[in-house]
Amino acid sequence: MSANASERLIEATRELLWERGYVGTSPKAIQQAAGAGQGSMYHHFAGKPALALAAIRRTAEELRAAAETELGGTGPAYTRIEAYLLRERDVLRGCPVGRLTMDPDVMADAELRAPVDETLDWLRGRLAEILQEGLDSGEFSPSLDARETAAAIVATAQGGYVLARAAGSPAAFDTAVRGLLALLSPRTAH
Amino acid sequence: MSANASERLIEATRELLWERGYVGTSPKAIQQAAGAGQGSMYHHFAGKPALALAAIRRTAEELRAAAETELGGTGPAYTRIEAYLLRERDVLRGCPVGRLTMDPDVMADAELRAPVDETLDWLRGRLAEILQEGLDSGEFSPSLDARETAAAIVATAQGGYVLARAAGSPAAFDTAVRGLLALLSPRTAH
Repeated sequence: MSANASERLIEATRELLWERGYVGTSPKAIQQAAGAGQGSMYHHFAGKPALALAAIRRTAEELRAAAETELGGTGPAYTRIEAYLLRERDVLRGCPVGRLTMDPDVMADAELRAPVDETLDWLRGRLAEILQEGLDSGEFSPSLDARETAAAIVATAQGGYVLARAAGSPAAFDTAVRGLLALLSPRTAH
Repeated sequence: MSANASERLIEATRELLWERGYVGTSPKAIQQAAGAGQGSMYHHFAGKPALALAAIRRTAEELRAAAETELGGTGPAYTRIEAYLLRERDVLRGCPVGRLTMDPDVMADAELRAPVDETLDWLRGRLAEILQEGLDSGEFSPSLDARETAAAIVATAQGGYVLARAAGSPAAFDTAVRGLLALLSPRTAH
């Protein structure tokens, strides 16, 4: 029961951080959503910041694992990047990691910001590796810089969420991603 | 004095929305930041939603005017888009319009979301016009779709803010933008 309470508290915090942001997530709301009492919460976690850190770390781990599903494939670089960008996702909720950058309280706390930064940094690095493979095999125009192109890919996805949320429609994400893929496409560049 | 109070209330709301988000911005905090009393606030505005709408509309107008400074130039399409993306901006604060998409209360209110959507839509449309000019003049690869490419450009800028805020450094914005510009560059595409 005790392990379950800890688990429920983390999941409730993830949900509330996503829906309401840090400042809008009260310890009381977390306890209610988790079906856990105040004593249970403070038995498992030092407080809201510790619980938020556990929630953000778990979200970050899930993002890495999900990205690696497509990026860790064996096909050509372009195909793996395309699969990553076009995979099904809950676009209107925003990127569970990226949107934390717009939460003032998360950004103001170096400990809470660290997993956000590390995750986006890992994703850029992973994409840069794959782009470099594609450059080495002649798949892409040799004028491309792997690191800068990787940053543009991550930025397009992150900005795609912004456009989709503004429009209230996932199509805006897809349009931006298709625009980037056309620019990156071996056919266009050669 | 009365017109000044209205003005100060709008500016204080813009600042607080940016710093604290909608839920973190109390009418009392607005009044304190504006140096205006409760009576003055409710004399000028029906309440916090009306004040937030005025603040968001003003921010949206400023973004359009600032974008048009570079986009409305007379040079080649690529040069104007490059100037727009590379112009000086307070990257670490995030896009004053785009970041509102990660504010759950702003997105949940159709009236507050409308100016956010309209502004990003206008920006995409304006960039698509310029890209079409570049396509018509043979500046870009004819395989590019103006509308999709415009969406990728806006997304890269919006995502560039996300990456910069996560890293705590404006350089992450610049890297993403340089990556996109290299993909778009007439030299790369031809």
